[in-house]
Amino acid sequence: MKDVAHKLTEFVQTHLPTARALEIEVADYDSQSLTLRAPLGPSINDKHTAFGGSLYVVAVMAGWGMVYLRCREAGIDPNIVVARGEIDYLAPVPGDIVASSLPVTEGDWEIFLQQFEERGKAKIELQTRILQGGEPAVKFTGLYAIIGHAPNIQV
Amino acid sequence: MKDVAHKLTEFVQTHLPTARALEIEVADYDSQSLTLRAPLGPSINDKHTAFGGSLYVVAVMAGWGMVYLRCREAGIDPNIVVARGEIDYLAPVPGDIVASSLPVTEGDWEIFLQQFEERGKAKIELQTRILQGGEPAVKFTGLYAIIGHAPNIQV
Repeated sequence: MKDVAHKLTEFVQTHLPTARALEIEVADYDSQSLTLRAPLGPSINDKHTAFGGSLYVVAVMAGWGMVYLRCREAGIDPNIVVARGEIDYLAPVPGDIVASSLPVTEGDWEIFLQQFEERGKAKIELQTRILQGGEPAVKFTGLYAIIGHAPNIQV
Repeated sequence: MKDVAHKLTEFVQTHLPTARALEIEVADYDSQSLTLRAPLGPSINDKHTAFGGSLYVVAVMAGWGMVYLRCREAGIDPNIVVARGEIDYLAPVPGDIVASSLPVTEGDWEIFLQQFEERGKAKIELQTRILQGGEPAVKFTGLYAIIGHAPNIQV
């Protein structure tokens, strides 16, 4: 796992109580894909599987974190928002929630970061998957936008 | 607010730690629409507005709860899952998250409940909105399915 991943952990700990409540942790990051993991306990539902809302949170964070870490690697401390999310629930998740972003090409990242440099904003669509027994249990597509540099807010 | 609404509060308290962490409460219910409210604190993000993942959770729960309460009113203790969710984030939410399901016709509910009676399962699509200053800040569409009666799980 790349060292830069700890910056996402710091961000979550500092800024996102929802992600802390769900005990979301970085499981792997290699500049192509980010994998997050969350235990079932804080996300359990009445069927003793993961609650659909919690699955969304881990899935949207895997894409969000991917954008965040690619920006940090490029020397940018970005202000990222999610503009749109689509999620399909294909199978129940009866254990740890493990969400991985799917790789896009290096060319896509270059265009995204170049757009941000030129216009001060940029958008990218990323997909994430939550697997269960090797098969996709959740398919998620998110549209993420950097809308400037991180706000200088004292927390 | 109809008395039956307390059944949703009980369900959340018993079964959904994520919804408890977000302090989601029933604000109103009248058999046509369910309104949920959650304070900003547990859902805040780095921009001091509501985190997109938390907005999804409150939005998906407003539709889920609507299906749950209509079923309880019809004498059914249902096993409901969300099969699909689509969310558009149109504006930031800098305060309480207030999500309301949009009404569907009584005919739609009748078809839904009759399908469940005949086939043991049924689907319905519901929309929810989170308003900010009278304008939609979040538009959500969820596909909900009842897949049987509530599992007899001891928690």
